[in-house]
Amino acid sequence: MRLTMMTDYAMRLLMYVARHPDRLCTIAEVARAYDISEAHLMKVTHQLGLNGWIETVRGKGGGMRLAHPPEKINLGAVVRSMESDFQLTECFGTGNQCSLTGSCRLTGIVDEALQGFLRAFDAHTLADIVPPGSGGEASGMRARPLTRMGKARAA
Amino acid sequence: MRLTMMTDYAMRLLMYVARHPDRLCTIAEVARAYDISEAHLMKVTHQLGLNGWIETVRGKGGGMRLAHPPEKINLGAVVRSMESDFQLTECFGTGNQCSLTGSCRLTGIVDEALQGFLRAFDAHTLADIVPPGSGGEASGMRARPLTRMGKARAA
Repeated sequence: MRLTMMTDYAMRLLMYVARHPDRLCTIAEVARAYDISEAHLMKVTHQLGLNGWIETVRGKGGGMRLAHPPEKINLGAVVRSMESDFQLTECFGTGNQCSLTGSCRLTGIVDEALQGFLRAFDAHTLADIVPPGSGGEASGMRARPLTRMGKARAA
Repeated sequence: MRLTMMTDYAMRLLMYVARHPDRLCTIAEVARAYDISEAHLMKVTHQLGLNGWIETVRGKGGGMRLAHPPEKINLGAVVRSMESDFQLTECFGTGNQCSLTGSCRLTGIVDEALQGFLRAFDAHTLADIVPPGSGGEASGMRARPLTRMGKARAA
C-alpha cells in the first residue's frame, strides 16, 4: 500500500516552506534539501497552488510561501486534495468489472479502513509536524505581488 | 492510494472459495468468475497457500479450499500477509534518503493512519463478507491427499 508520490512530496514541501516563514522558497532549494526530482516537485507545487495551500510569486526573486498559517492547514484536507485516486481495490475505480459489485460486503470494510486512515491526518495540522521555532530567517527579498493559484481550502 | 493487486485478488479468491465449502475450486474458475488474469491468480494462490490461508490438492480433480473455517480467517491478518509493502511514503522504505529522517513528525501520523486503516480489517473475518447460505454444492470429487502449503496463521 502506498500514498502517491504527489502526497509524499506535498507534505515534505509544505513542511519545508513552513520552516521558512519569513522568505519565499524555491522549487530548486526544496529539491536539493530532500534530494528529490525538481520536475516532480514542479507538478506538486502546481497542484498545491491550485488547491490553495501555497501562494507563488513569479519572476526573479520569486518563489512560494504558505497561503495560510500552518495551524490552519489540515493534513487530512491536504491528503484528500493531493490523492486523486482512492481506488484501493478495483471496485472503487471507474473501470470496475468485478462480478461481486452490488452484493459485496468487502466494499464497506475497505471504505471503513480508508476513513480510519484519513482520520489520523484529519486530527493534525501542518503546525503539528513543523518543529517549533524553526525557520524565521530574514530574507531581504523584493517580491512581486503574489499570484494566487486557485481557491483556498484551509481548515 | 491503493492496495496491491495481490491483496485485492486474495480477498476475492477467498470469498469465492468460502462460497463453495463442499468442493475444491480451481484457479481457472475463479479467474472466469471475476474476469481476471489466471497468471496473477496463480501467484496469489501460491502466496495464500504459503501463508496458510488455503490448502491445495494437486493433480486431476485437484483445486483449493480454505485451510480454516471462514470465521477463523481474520481479514486484517490476510491483508498484512499479502501486502509485502507498507511503504506509504519514502521514509517507510529501505532506500530512504529523506533528510528529515530522525526529526520528522509526519512519520508518526502516517503510522497512526496505517494502524487506523488495518483496524477496520482486524475487526472482521472472512465469514463477515461471505453471504450466509452461499455455496454448498455436492462435489462428488475424488481428491488426493491435501498438500498443505506453509504454516497456518488463522485467528
